[in-house]
Amino acid sequence: MTPQSEDFSAWYNEVVVKAQLVDRGPVRGTMVIRPYGYRIWELLQADLDRRIKEAGHDNACFPMFIPESYLRREAEHVEGFSPELAVVTVAGGKELEEPLVVRPTSETVIGEYMAKWIDSHRDLPLLLNQWANVVRWELRPRMFLRTTEFLWQEGHTAHIDEADAMRETEWALDTYAAVARELAAMPVVPGEKTAGERFAGAVRTYTIEGMMRDGRALQAGTSHYLGTNFAKAFNIQYQDEEGALQYAHTTSWGMSTRMIGGVIMTHGDDKGLVLPPRLAPYQVVIVPIGRKEQGEATAAEARRLGAAIKSMGIRVHVDDNRPQLSPGFKFNDWEMRGVPIRIEIGPRDLADGVGTLARRLPTAEGQGKETIPLARLPEELPQILADFQAFLLARAEAFRNEHTRAVDSWDDFGAQVSGGWALAFHCGRTECEDDIKADTAATPRCIPADGPAEQGDCVKCGRPSPYGKRLIFGKAY
Amino acid sequence: MTPQSEDFSAWYNEVVVKAQLVDRGPVRGTMVIRPYGYRIWELLQADLDRRIKEAGHDNACFPMFIPESYLRREAEHVEGFSPELAVVTVAGGKELEEPLVVRPTSETVIGEYMAKWIDSHRDLPLLLNQWANVVRWELRPRMFLRTTEFLWQEGHTAHIDEADAMRETEWALDTYAAVARELAAMPVVPGEKTAGERFAGAVRTYTIEGMMRDGRALQAGTSHYLGTNFAKAFNIQYQDEEGALQYAHTTSWGMSTRMIGGVIMTHGDDKGLVLPPRLAPYQVVIVPIGRKEQGEATAAEARRLGAAIKSMGIRVHVDDNRPQLSPGFKFNDWEMRGVPIRIEIGPRDLADGVGTLARRLPTAEGQGKETIPLARLPEELPQILADFQAFLLARAEAFRNEHTRAVDSWDDFGAQVSGGWALAFHCGRTECEDDIKADTAATPRCIPADGPAEQGDCVKCGRPSPYGKRLIFGKAY
Ligand SMILES: [Zn+2]
Ligand SMILES: [Zn+2]
Repeated sequence: MTPQSEDFSAWYNEVVVKAQLVDRGPVRGTMVIRPYGYRIWELLQADLDRRIKEAGHDNACFPMFIPESYLRREAEHVEGFSPELAVVTVAGGKELEEPLVVRPTSETVIGEYMAKWIDSHRDLPLLLNQWANVVRWELRPRMFLRTTEFLWQEGHTAHIDEADAMRETEWALDTYAAVARELAAMPVVPGEKTAGERFAGAVRTYTIEGMMRDGRALQAGTSHYLGTNFAKAFNIQYQDEEGALQYAHTTSWGMSTRMIGGVIMTHGDDKGLVLPPRLAPYQVVIVPIGRKEQGEATAAEARRLGAAIKSMGIRVHVDDNRPQLSPGFKFNDWEMRGVPIRIEIGPRDLADGVGTLARRLPTAEGQGKETIPLARLPEELPQILADFQAFLLARAEAFRNEHTRAVDSWDDFGAQVSGGWALAFHCGRTECEDDIKADTAATPRCIPADGPAEQGDCVKCGRPSPYGKRLIFGKAY
Repeated sequence: MTPQSEDFSAWYNEVVVKAQLVDRGPVRGTMVIRPYGYRIWELLQADLDRRIKEAGHDNACFPMFIPESYLRREAEHVEGFSPELAVVTVAGGKELEEPLVVRPTSETVIGEYMAKWIDSHRDLPLLLNQWANVVRWELRPRMFLRTTEFLWQEGHTAHIDEADAMRETEWALDTYAAVARELAAMPVVPGEKTAGERFAGAVRTYTIEGMMRDGRALQAGTSHYLGTNFAKAFNIQYQDEEGALQYAHTTSWGMSTRMIGGVIMTHGDDKGLVLPPRLAPYQVVIVPIGRKEQGEATAAEARRLGAAIKSMGIRVHVDDNRPQLSPGFKFNDWEMRGVPIRIEIGPRDLADGVGTLARRLPTAEGQGKETIPLARLPEELPQILADFQAFLLARAEAFRNEHTRAVDSWDDFGAQVSGGWALAFHCGRTECEDDIKADTAATPRCIPADGPAEQGDCVKCGRPSPYGKRLIFGKAY
C-alpha cells in the first residue's frame, strides 16, 4: 500500500478497496458499499436514529423524483443545485411532459407536504426525518466523500418562530458532534459557516469539521436554519393563537456515508484501516494457530472463546475457515482491515489457558501485545475496547492540536494551511474568501462555537474582523 | 368512509389517507409514506432484517443507476422490465452517452459484482441483501400495492449447485411466510408460481399469497431460483475443488412496502384500520376524560399509567394534548387508525382505580369492552396484546377458509373467483391461463406447497393436469 506520507490520496483510494469497504460502481462516480463498509453505516445509523427518535422526531419516506418546477421555487436553492442534478426524461416508454429531478436533497418536496399538513400552531413543531439515497452528479468523485449517489439522513422540521427553529438547529449540531466524538472518535469542531459557505437557501448554516491525518478538513455533518425562505416558497403557514396566518420557520440537517470516509482518514495508518470499536464490524478477531490436530484443538478453543465473547454483546469473528492462509498473512489482513483487538491462540498456549492479545495500535500506556489468560478475557474485553476507543479519540485530538496554529501574517498562513489548520482573523467578505482560496486552496471551515473572544484584522486584506473571534481555515475535502 | 361492501377500492383509498399512512406524491404513481405508515414498515423491517442476518446474510448497498446495457444481457429479464423503466438521460447539465435505468430490481448490477468477487468454491455461498428503493413505472397506481417507487429488501445469493440454491430459495419463502403470519397476522399460502406467472429470468418462482377481505389475492413476497441464467449473462463462475470452472446458481427474493397494503386489506373494516399489535405504531392508546380539574387529574393518571406500560416494552400513546376534541371523537379516531387496545380513564374511575379497556374488535371469547383495575394493567397487557394478535390471525384464517372452495366445473369456477379463491385443476398451458384470465380476470395464484395429492382434468379445457394437485385461482392485486 502507498504510504500516507507519500501520497495520502493514493493511500485512501487503495485502502477503501483492499479493506473491502467499497467498490467502484458501474456508472462513473457511483459506489458499491460492500458488507464490511455497510456494517459501519448500520452501526452509525442505529445510534443516530435512536437519538433522533428520542428527541421526538418521526421517520417518514418522501419520493425521490421531484418535479423540476419545485426546485425553481426557491431561487438560491435551484441555483446551488442545478449543476449537479440527474434528470429522468423518459419513463414507461414515453418522453415525460415535465422532467423529474432525482432528489439532491428534499427541502422542496417536503416543504410541499408541510404546507399541506400544517394548519394551526397546534401542529407545530413538525419534526420529520428520513433515511434516503440522494444524487449529486460528481465530476471529481471520491469513494464515500463525494459520490454521485450517497446515503444519508435528512431532518426537516417546521417551527412557530425563529427561537424554536434555532433550538432545533443547535440540537442537530450538538447531536452530530456527539455521534462523531462518541462513535467515530472524531474530535470535531462545531461552528457556523461564513456567508460564502452557506447551504443554498439557508439563513445560517452550522457544521462539524474534523481534521484528517493529512491536515485537511472534512465537513462531517451540517445543520441549517432556513428562516422563512422555504415557508414562503411553499406556503408553509399556520394560524397562531389569535387566528392570524404566520409563516413557519424551518430547519434541515444531514449526516451521510461521508462519515465513513472521515473514520478512515482520522485514524488510518500505513498498515491500513484503524476502526474505533463502536463502529467496527468486528471488534475482536480470534486467530487460532497450528496445523492438523494442533490446528483443530486451537480452532475448537477459539470457537468456545468466541461464543463466550459474543455472549458479552461484543462483535467477534473467529478466523477458523481459511487453512490455506498463514497466521502471518491473517494478522496483516486483520490489521489492514482495522480490527481493534486480535487474539492469537497457539498450540503451546492451550495447556496454559492463555492467548496473545494484540491491539491495532499500542495505547497511550504503551500496551500493544500481551499474554492474557483466556478465562478472564470475556469479562475484561469491554474495558479493553472502551480504553481503545478513548485512546483513538485522544490520539486524534492531539494530532489536531499539533496541526492547528493561530497565525497573524499572510506568510505564516500559507505555510500553516499546507498541512493543518490556521486560526486567523477574517474580514467576512466573500471576495476575500475567494482570494484566499485562489492563492492557497484553503477556505474558512467554520467560526468555531467555542473559540475565545478576540479582536483582530483580516489575515489577507487587513480589514477589521466582524466575528469577534478567529475562524478556522484549512483545505477541505 | 365508504363501506367495504359498497366499494372495497374506494374504502381502501380513503382509509390509507384518513389514517395518515400515506399521501399521494407529487409525481403520478408515487407516494409519501407518513410517519404512521413508515413506523409499520420499520417494525416489519427490524424483524425481517434480524432473520436475514441470523441466517448468515450480509447487508450491502448497490447503486440505483444501472447502465441500460446491463439489463439487455438477460433476454427475458429485459423484456419483462422494459415497459416499466424510468430512464435518466441528462446529468450534470449534459446529455449522457449511455442512458441510465433507475433500478427496477438489482439482479443485473449485483450479478456484475458477484462475478468480480467470486473466484473459488470457498467464496460460496455468497449471501447478500439490501434495503432499497426501486422504480417501476405504474399506469394504474395504488398506494402501497403498486407505486412507481417503493421500498423493499432484495436478497441476492450465489451457490455451488442447484441443491444449495434451492435450499436458499425455500428458506426465503419460509421466512416470508413466518413474517406474514407472526407479525402481520396474515395466513398466507406458500407455493410455486406456474410458468406463466414466473419472474422474468427465473427458472422457478415461489410466492406467498394472502386473501384480502374482498376475496382477492395479494402476492406478498416472492423467492426465485434463477438457475444459471444470470450466472451465464454476467459470467459468475467459480473454480471447483478439482480446479474446473463452473457457473454459480443464483437466487433472489424480495418483500416490499406492499405488505402494508396487505395488513390493511386483511384486517380492516368499515370503521377503518385494524392493526395487528406486532406491527402497530401504537399498541395501546390511553384517553383521559373530563374537563378542567377533573381532566387534569385523569390526564395525570393517564401519563403515570402510560409510563408504567411503556416500561413493559409496549408502544403506548397518551392522548392528553387535544383538549379541543371530544372523547367520542378521539375514540372514533383511534379506532379508524386501527389501534389494538384503547384505555379510557374517566373522573369517576380514579377513586376506584379502574379504567375501561376496549379492544379494536371483540375477540373470539366475546371480550370487547371491560372495566379493568389499572394497577394490574401493565402486567396483563402483554397477554392481552398476544391474544388480540392470535385472534386476528384466526379471524383471517377463518375468512380465507370460508371463501375458498374446490371447484370442478367451469360454471362454478366463475362464481367462486368473483368473491374468493377456487381450488381447481389446470392443464399447465399458458394459453389456457390467458383464456381463464380473459373470461374471469382470475389467474393461478400458486401451486400450494401443502395442497394434498390429487389427480384431475383442467377446469377450463378438460386436458389432464400435470401438477398432481389443485392450484389456487383468484383475482389478484
Ligand atoms: Zn479580508
Ligand atoms: Zn387448460
